[in-house]
Amino acid sequence: MTGPNDDFHVYDTTLRDGAQREGISYSVTDKLAVARLLDGLGVGFIEGGWPGALPKDTEFFARAAAGDLELKHAKLVAFGATRKAGVKVEEDRQVKALLDAQAPVITLVAKSDLRHIERALRTDTEENLKMVRDTVKYLKDHGRRVFLDAEHFFDGYAFSPDTSLRVLESAVEGGADVVVLCDTNGGQLPLNLAETVAEVVEKTGFRVGIHCQDDTSCAVANTIAAVQAGATHVQCTANGYGERAGNADLFAVVGNLVTKLGMEVLPTGALAELTRVSHALAEIANIAPDTHQAYVGSSAFAHKAGLHASAIKVDPELYNHIDPDIVGNDMRVLVTEMAGRASIELKGREFGLDLAGRSTEVGSALSRVKELESKGWSFEAADASLELLLRNELSELDGPPPFTLESYRVVLDHRSDGEIVSEATVKVHVAGERVIATAEGNGPVHALDAALRKALLPHLSWLDTVELADYKVRILTEHPGTDAVTRVLVESTDGEREWTTVGVHGNIVEASWLALCDALVHKSMRSTM
Amino acid sequence: MTGPNDDFHVYDTTLRDGAQREGISYSVTDKLAVARLLDGLGVGFIEGGWPGALPKDTEFFARAAAGDLELKHAKLVAFGATRKAGVKVEEDRQVKALLDAQAPVITLVAKSDLRHIERALRTDTEENLKMVRDTVKYLKDHGRRVFLDAEHFFDGYAFSPDTSLRVLESAVEGGADVVVLCDTNGGQLPLNLAETVAEVVEKTGFRVGIHCQDDTSCAVANTIAAVQAGATHVQCTANGYGERAGNADLFAVVGNLVTKLGMEVLPTGALAELTRVSHALAEIANIAPDTHQAYVGSSAFAHKAGLHASAIKVDPELYNHIDPDIVGNDMRVLVTEMAGRASIELKGREFGLDLAGRSTEVGSALSRVKELESKGWSFEAADASLELLLRNELSELDGPPPFTLESYRVVLDHRSDGEIVSEATVKVHVAGERVIATAEGNGPVHALDAALRKALLPHLSWLDTVELADYKVRILTEHPGTDAVTRVLVESTDGEREWTTVGVHGNIVEASWLALCDALVHKSMRSTM
Repeated sequence: MTGPNDDFHVYDTTLRDGAQREGISYSVTDKLAVARLLDGLGVGFIEGGWPGALPKDTEFFARAAAGDLELKHAKLVAFGATRKAGVKVEEDRQVKALLDAQAPVITLVAKSDLRHIERALRTDTEENLKMVRDTVKYLKDHGRRVFLDAEHFFDGYAFSPDTSLRVLESAVEGGADVVVLCDTNGGQLPLNLAETVAEVVEKTGFRVGIHCQDDTSCAVANTIAAVQAGATHVQCTANGYGERAGNADLFAVVGNLVTKLGMEVLPTGALAELTRVSHALAEIANIAPDTHQAYVGSSAFAHKAGLHASAIKVDPELYNHIDPDIVGNDMRVLVTEMAGRASIELKGREFGLDLAGRSTEVGSALSRVKELESKGWSFEAADASLELLLRNELSELDGPPPFTLESYRVVLDHRSDGEIVSEATVKVHVAGERVIATAEGNGPVHALDAALRKALLPHLSWLDTVELADYKVRILTEHPGTDAVTRVLVESTDGEREWTTVGVHGNIVEASWLALCDALVHKSMRSTM
Repeated sequence: MTGPNDDFHVYDTTLRDGAQREGISYSVTDKLAVARLLDGLGVGFIEGGWPGALPKDTEFFARAAAGDLELKHAKLVAFGATRKAGVKVEEDRQVKALLDAQAPVITLVAKSDLRHIERALRTDTEENLKMVRDTVKYLKDHGRRVFLDAEHFFDGYAFSPDTSLRVLESAVEGGADVVVLCDTNGGQLPLNLAETVAEVVEKTGFRVGIHCQDDTSCAVANTIAAVQAGATHVQCTANGYGERAGNADLFAVVGNLVTKLGMEVLPTGALAELTRVSHALAEIANIAPDTHQAYVGSSAFAHKAGLHASAIKVDPELYNHIDPDIVGNDMRVLVTEMAGRASIELKGREFGLDLAGRSTEVGSALSRVKELESKGWSFEAADASLELLLRNELSELDGPPPFTLESYRVVLDHRSDGEIVSEATVKVHVAGERVIATAEGNGPVHALDAALRKALLPHLSWLDTVELADYKVRILTEHPGTDAVTRVLVESTDGEREWTTVGVHGNIVEASWLALCDALVHKSMRSTM
């Protein structure tokens, strides 16, 4: 596999700047999973967070340093600020935390807008320059590679170009080898931004990077324009996650650089993983994938009325800006999120299944996956359900299931005193017995889960360790109105591992039931393997 | 009110190209509502659809011509194709349908890529040119203003510039006064696109428009770059709705033109309506508003960690690319979708309420709206619920409510035969009696609605005409996991008018109940007014 070299940097900041998006709250486990997916895609740098400022980020770097994160392509980056004004760099606790994170690369953020230096930082230009130079040099002296994020650069450059350029100069004097021009407030437009980038490159000769926010809906375009103007380092986030309107979307930026400008910025073969990685990262963030996202959205190559389907079939290149296969996407309206047979085989190997010479079963598993996905199922983030489906198709689920359902009933009462109560009764067969159990819950699903556990626990001792770790609901609105189906993802844990299952149904309670059952069946299978 | 003149065209195609987005299915009523909102915003042109090709579009133009749509700012535009190859223009039925639509402006789409002319249209360049010239001239002779959409222009121009330019020339010869360069497949990037636009403007001297798709995530940037390169007509859709990755977002394009390039492309005061109109159009399309959309998203000016709230408060202009008030948006994390007191007063007048000298009640209604919206309620598309809330705060709801709830119970059964059944019982007080009724339904909400009608119908004869027209559910994921609240919108009709109500609760059944009750109370109020 040929990979990108240092000439051009694809730098991901999903775990730091992307995590600023409202609604995202990554656990440390989430962060490790995100980093692995990004590394698998072949980005050059993964900014993991701000150690010392956020406890979860500190822990993430500690676990990475302890061996929980083996990166094949990417270098891990710790993000932080320069030393405080009036403090010696070796005595600055934040700077120490950056070294303690043990990441080989450190990106320092520095003010580069005179107004921010004076009004937000409340110091003067000279002290700010020293803060930049001192901190970069100190980290360099401790063996780190250092990049500088010049915050509010474009606004600052328009207001007082000299101030902003001197910040870049101080960073390079200290030993930084990339100065990243940040459109922190996101107000730039491409033609104007490209002019500024070209001017800075020409005036300074420095290696320039670009970091764009999407407040004008131009973050991707601004990033590309900056590259065309001489930037060789692009900072992006997966799916454009980020504060306010978000950041430049990694997948659109990479898609454009590779397919429009012919730049090989990812390892060979990685581009075909774009769609899968995008969707998996959306699931981890618990954000519905944007179906209309450029390159990777499930509708990005889907055609509706106005064109004859047959015309598209004959001449697809007339109606698509690229072949969707290039980015692992699909032209069908009902997109199969899985790339196909190859993915099934890949997944099978992950589960420890030997699929050699079993192409019939693989084919029937693929058909089943496609059929379910057309009905709203998604296995991207529900490996445990997919494993059960595969083992079932391969007839590898020996023995009877751990329990079978006879019936359940959920009652929602809006009482005359205004209280709303949910109660569930399940009738199940387990260990040769018929068991009936009733429980209450905060809502119908909690009640159902509680009743099922109450029924099974005396007979299935392993259930004791299993807990519901997370519960996600998404209404799929492809079918507007009451025909919408509900997809439920249930994440379970037994203290040692986590696994996720999925259920889909028109009725939210039944969808939840399907996901809950898969979770327990999967645990049972692992307990008896 | 000063408005835009003909020097620059803001041209909206939400109702035609926007409707190509998967999941959008506008009724004729929806289309009229969309057109009114866009007209209120002050766009110059509203493309209403393709009469003759789509029955709903034909009906829309018929109703507009019959007086159902009075436009204050905008000109209505009918969209269609040039005459067919080998057919006389006066005998072409599609062309006739364009005239029958009675819109003052017609936009014709024509092939302008040699490969499409030969492979999709299966004709030759000369006949294609005649089709363009003939059709434009015929429509001009019938008193219409004609614009030409040059489909696949950028791809075609790169492949065979002469062919593409001759299509523009034929249109202008026929009498078209704007030729719109379309990036139909959406593969363009801003710097390159701007070069082409400038070249076409220079070579031809024609008035040039721009129409961009978002397949590279650059539609907004491409549109702006085209304007900077000489285009004076921009085709956009509300919220970027459109096929595949969508179109250039009207709100971002307008926001950029006004606030970044200082162009007065909307009537005075209209920009402050941007956020409200965007959200209202999302509700009509039944698509969750993109919380991170530039300018208008509820998070577009919301700041999370990393910055001290107090610093932002002192110097907000340091941290926002524009003042959010300019576009009717808000810097708070919990955004009040309503613009404030002025909106409440405006709405009150719409409802026929006299609010003069009642600022205390208006203030308390506003507080109530803000409080509810912070909990997930949205009144943008639920006028009937808002009217009830206002009349309640103003103590204008005389007399007892038409009915009161004692209790309800919903039972969901997953039976031993695998069938899933929903049944509801309601106990209500109506016309001095206590009534109990039970009904089944496809799901819990249908069952509840059926039981309520069964209980009330013998006592409230007006209920007979009321029907549930639409039912929309949205899970609000701001609070991930099981704490998510569900928002339900219920559209009701009595055959004469339609009204929409909203309910929000952690329990989907209770949320639906709240919306259903508001719908009936609102009907009752109107029946007794």
